[in-house]
Formats: sequence, C-alpha cells, structure tokens
Amino acid sequence: MHYPEPLARLIEAFQKLPGIGPKTATRLAFYVLKLPDEDVRALAEALQAVKRDLKTCSICHNVTDRDPCAICSDPTRDRRTICVVEEPKDVAAMEKMKGYRGLYHVLGGVLSPLDGIGPEELKIKSLLERLQDETVEEVIIATNPSVEGEATAVYLARLIKPSGIRVTRIASGLPVGGDLEYADEVTLARALEGRRDV
Amino acid sequence: MHYPEPLARLIEAFQKLPGIGPKTATRLAFYVLKLPDEDVRALAEALQAVKRDLKTCSICHNVTDRDPCAICSDPTRDRRTICVVEEPKDVAAMEKMKGYRGLYHVLGGVLSPLDGIGPEELKIKSLLERLQDETVEEVIIATNPSVEGEATAVYLARLIKPSGIRVTRIASGLPVGGDLEYADEVTLARALEGRRDV
Repeated sequence: MHYPEPLARLIEAFQKLPGIGPKTATRLAFYVLKLPDEDVRALAEALQAVKRDLKTCSICHNVTDRDPCAICSDPTRDRRTICVVEEPKDVAAMEKMKGYRGLYHVLGGVLSPLDGIGPEELKIKSLLERLQDETVEEVIIATNPSVEGEATAVYLARLIKPSGIRVTRIASGLPVGGDLEYADEVTLARALEGRRDV
Repeated sequence: MHYPEPLARLIEAFQKLPGIGPKTATRLAFYVLKLPDEDVRALAEALQAVKRDLKTCSICHNVTDRDPCAICSDPTRDRRTICVVEEPKDVAAMEKMKGYRGLYHVLGGVLSPLDGIGPEELKIKSLLERLQDETVEEVIIATNPSVEGEATAVYLARLIKPSGIRVTRIASGLPVGGDLEYADEVTLARALEGRRDV
C-alpha cells in the first residue's frame, strides 16, 4: 500500500521505538490521525523537550533536569549509603519502592566484554572518586541479577572493599507472590543460599 | 517516583496512544532518552506533519496529502466499482491485498445508535451523490463483519439497490489457514451459508 508520505514517515519513525513493529506502528499512526491536535502537539513537544532539557547529573549520572539532580541535592537523603544501579530506570524502580533514603550511582550499563564494554565505558572511576569522601559507609550494588550484573557486582566489590567501605549486594530469591513450583533452579538455589533465621 | 518534569510529561503523552499504559509509556520514555537525537526529532516532526499535511479526500474521504487523493485521481483505476469501507486503515488493508483496482469510499465509521452515530454522522450522502454518476456499476460493501458493520451494510444496500446499481458484500467465512475445530459457530455458519460449487 502506498500511504500518503507524511503517514509513511510517521509509521517508519514509530518503528524506532522498542517492541513496535510495522503492524503496531501502522495502528499507532492511524490512531494519531484521530487524536486531538493538542494531544499530538503535546507528544511531539515532550519528545523534543526530553532531548533538549534533560541532562546527566554530574555526581550520580542519573537523568535530571537540573545539575546536581534532585536526589543528590536533597539535604534529607542519607549520604552514608550509595546504591549502584545500571540505568536511570533502575533509580526510578528503587524510588518507587520508597524504602531507600540514600544516594545513587548510575553506571550506565554493565561489564560485558563481548559487547566491548569494559570498566572504562562505565562510570566506575567517578564512583571511586565519590568514595574518597569520608561520609560513605556502605555501597549497595543493585545491578540486575544477570550474568553481567553479577560479574559487575563482583568486580566493584573487589575494587571497593580494600578501602574498608562495606559493600553489599541486593538479595536474589523467589519474588513475593511467586511459586516454588514455577521457580527456575538457579533462582531456587539462590533463595536457599540466602536463607535467613526466622 | 519523582521523574524529572520533561520525562514525566513524555510518559503522560505516550499514554494517549492505544494499548500503551503507564508501564509501557515509562519504558518508551526511557528508551527515547537513549535514542539518537535525529531519530527523536524525526518522530516529533512526523507526528506534527501528519496533523499538518494530511487532509481528507473530498471525493472518497480517505486520508491523503493532496486532494483528490492518489487513488481517486489515478486514471488507471476502474471507475465502475466503489468499495465502501469504515476507516482509512481499511483502504490500506485492501490496497495491500493488491487484487482490487476500483475506487473507495470511506464512511468514517459504522451505524451505531447506542453511540449516537446515525446516517448523518457517516459519509453516506456523499456516497449517494457519487452514485448519480452513470459510470458506477457495483458497490462492494466492505464494512467489518461485526454487528454494526452488518447493519450498516444492510442499510446501505437498501438505499442503493433502487437505483439499479449492483450491491455486493465481501464474504464471511473461515480465514485461510484457519481450523474448523477452532472456528466460532457464527463464522462456521457463515462459511456454510456462503458455500460455492467447486
């Protein structure tokens, strides 16, 4: 089908987004045709604003609209703890949980030699610099429980421990509401390994 | 979580699209952060261009970037047949099939009294005007095989038949590659009803 050119261009542009193939892109584009003008303008402007107005916090490397970010510059946060995560979205996940009041450090990925990502590509040097500060007492490593995430956690732990700072790793185990029957062996082994007295 | 304001606005804007809830919107927004600048600009501009540059063909009411649309103004199309569909995306579906060389007429919906959509809300009057033209010999009604689509087909057939123009309805039945075992009763009944000599 020969779509009118503006429509074809929108369908193509939508396909740059994750999980959106040609069919979904076409459905979205036809839907946009029916959306009120102001909704479409708002989406277009929000897209450009995100690129224009968001930057990286010079301290924790999280995305932010001001530097330092809201968390780094919040005097009520506990400066003795730094939680190390892979990506800005992981900060969002932690903050949603509301149980953590310390600071963050966004690595910008995980060690993955096969993809050419070594320590130099991650924000590891700046993490070590932050730890020079006497106030930090604990580094919680909250990279994903994947092979790369675990490897990165071990690597960081080895780097940091000599300085005497406590390094912890978030627990792996059965998700709450999960079912032993459907848990994979590795998760179950982790859950057993991480058992605690009740 | 307190997202930086530009990000929060993008997440909200994405949720106006169909099938995109808060979770997907957040995932898309974080993905946009990592997209190259030019891809984001292309998407934002395509969104606005669709609203700015696309109009409705004054003959068939399909979406188009020029009036009359590419199909209505194509001298090689068969002007004796008009295929009536609900929405512009149905024209796209028909064109993808490549087997149809006639013209189209986009109703802009179907009769649905419960939603307050009567004949006045659809492009029925302009369809009847097009049929005044002596060249039209057949109207193919290709509204969806839903309750409203069928009702609209019956309504149109009654309006058009007195003028002596042939009115046909696309066939309902088992989809190609489908399975009798999994077909619903109504579809199966239609398939039986529409049987043909082999």
